[in-house]
Amino acid sequence: MAEPVTVAVDANGADKGPAEVARGAALAAAGGTRVLLFGPADAMGDAGDGVEVVDAPVSIAKEPDPARAVRRTPDASVVRAVEAVAEGRADALVSGGSTGAALAAALFRFKRAPGVHRPALAIVVPVPKAPFLLLDAGANVEVRPEHLVQFAHMGAAFMEVVMGVDRPRVALLSNGDEPNKGPEVVVAAHEALRSQPGELNFVGNVEGFAIGTGAADVIVADGFAGNVALKVMEGTSSALLGAIRGAAMSSARAKLGGLLLRPALRGLRDEIDPEEAGGAVLLGLRRLGIVPHGSFGARGFARAIEVAARGVRLDVAGRTHDRLAAAGALRRTEVSETAASVPEEK
Amino acid sequence: MAEPVTVAVDANGADKGPAEVARGAALAAAGGTRVLLFGPADAMGDAGDGVEVVDAPVSIAKEPDPARAVRRTPDASVVRAVEAVAEGRADALVSGGSTGAALAAALFRFKRAPGVHRPALAIVVPVPKAPFLLLDAGANVEVRPEHLVQFAHMGAAFMEVVMGVDRPRVALLSNGDEPNKGPEVVVAAHEALRSQPGELNFVGNVEGFAIGTGAADVIVADGFAGNVALKVMEGTSSALLGAIRGAAMSSARAKLGGLLLRPALRGLRDEIDPEEAGGAVLLGLRRLGIVPHGSFGARGFARAIEVAARGVRLDVAGRTHDRLAAAGALRRTEVSETAASVPEEK
Repeated sequence: MAEPVTVAVDANGADKGPAEVARGAALAAAGGTRVLLFGPADAMGDAGDGVEVVDAPVSIAKEPDPARAVRRTPDASVVRAVEAVAEGRADALVSGGSTGAALAAALFRFKRAPGVHRPALAIVVPVPKAPFLLLDAGANVEVRPEHLVQFAHMGAAFMEVVMGVDRPRVALLSNGDEPNKGPEVVVAAHEALRSQPGELNFVGNVEGFAIGTGAADVIVADGFAGNVALKVMEGTSSALLGAIRGAAMSSARAKLGGLLLRPALRGLRDEIDPEEAGGAVLLGLRRLGIVPHGSFGARGFARAIEVAARGVRLDVAGRTHDRLAAAGALRRTEVSETAASVPEEK
Repeated sequence: MAEPVTVAVDANGADKGPAEVARGAALAAAGGTRVLLFGPADAMGDAGDGVEVVDAPVSIAKEPDPARAVRRTPDASVVRAVEAVAEGRADALVSGGSTGAALAAALFRFKRAPGVHRPALAIVVPVPKAPFLLLDAGANVEVRPEHLVQFAHMGAAFMEVVMGVDRPRVALLSNGDEPNKGPEVVVAAHEALRSQPGELNFVGNVEGFAIGTGAADVIVADGFAGNVALKVMEGTSSALLGAIRGAAMSSARAKLGGLLLRPALRGLRDEIDPEEAGGAVLLGLRRLGIVPHGSFGARGFARAIEVAARGVRLDVAGRTHDRLAAAGALRRTEVSETAASVPEEK
């Protein structure tokens, strides 16, 4: 077996505190991944074998302008964790603070992967029996067709290499199934994807209804529509579950029903557990970054570290490049471009 | 009381057939609204007092290109219903066939309301305890800031006048709460709405999470993001309810729990019943149009007819114009513009 992978982890900003992140790091280390853990050393203690604690107490996880905070705070834990990856002391990043700060730091210090226009934020959406990868979930609110084309390949490579999905079906999110539906940028991307050589398994457009139907393994959108879709899913789920919970408390009979139903619903809850996927994935940079949700516990952080290590070991970046090259979708010239915008807080 | 309002109804295309639409028309007529009912006379019979049946058997509800079908099929029931409104024989349109055909026909034959840039499709989303109007739900996939500004006023006028909401809170859908979040067009619309005089109660941006929280009475989006949001809500709800139903069948204990819970959930089901709102509303034309969902039964069609009649009686078009004028948001010159694109099938 090759050398162990090292993951740089920012422990600041997680809702349950740095000690919970340290417990996650210890779990991942027990599985064979080395961890460089950046955060307040006094709050984390000794995380055990395989975890090297670096005292970095400064947090910018709650800053309103993450891009500015990253530039002005070189000793922030997330900036130091990103530095460690950029300088080769670690192979990938995990940050459980703010998505905005992690993204801003990674955009400033990691370079784009060769031939990639724009990095994208990708999320494995844990729909029962039909999980799928949604990207871009908010890194690029305005895109060009060639960006969407690259997102398609980046997402397919991740699902295939890291999640083990064979020939992942890739779809474009639009307001209709037909190739001519949607804004110009979506119509142009559809056309380009349809006529693409290489190994992409493009299945056409899907509508918002496709959530939960298992129609695609990867759903590609601009960062605005993708972000709206993701948050509408969360909003709708929590409104609906709240209403059902309310109904189940509305009478003695309903309460008993809810009680009897609970064990069966527990299985469902596990199936839609967002911790399992490890968090949002930053694709398209030279280094892989994973941003667990701030609410995650130790197991979620451990999963994030494992997913990052798996991506490094299986060379998701190299596989992405190969796909883009085979499809003729690499960026032609390395002219300087506007950097992707920094996305909102999760 | 003034003269009774007449609503032209297209009976073709509804999932349950023209006879079900005719029953809905009879219900509405019993409530005092006159109905001109276009569809196959032999399938509808005599719908009773207040309903005048016009034999119009030709249906274009299932045509793949509704705009083309509208132009080529002058004797289609939806085209004839729209004609009746355009010519003043009726005051508003209800079409239960395809949204695309109704919209295409209305765009061709109704004129835009004075000073309105673009008509929009608006949907009252029946979230438990927090219903809100979402627009545009698919009529305009690409918009300019001034279109979003007008949608805000059009939506507010509808909620106030027709749905009886006092000083409706209007929000812009974006990928973050902050005024600078979102694509340029959203940022510019936010700026314009914030500095708007007149009676608009603008509460800023909301994210997709806002679904179900009651944060706004009107949520404004371009037709692409709005359509995605609407369909993601539907997709998420049905995936989640399906999974819960599955869990409730997974064991004898769970089955009993589901059975006991059922009466309490029935109340919830009524609360989120889409028939109550009558369907999608076509705003911004000289005439009001309502498009019930194809799956609606007689009661849904009756509600659609009642909502249309209410909009006419309370002069939602005039109230919208007053708001736009007070806010300085009327279209400046009556130069010819690209017509709104025809939206997808529901």
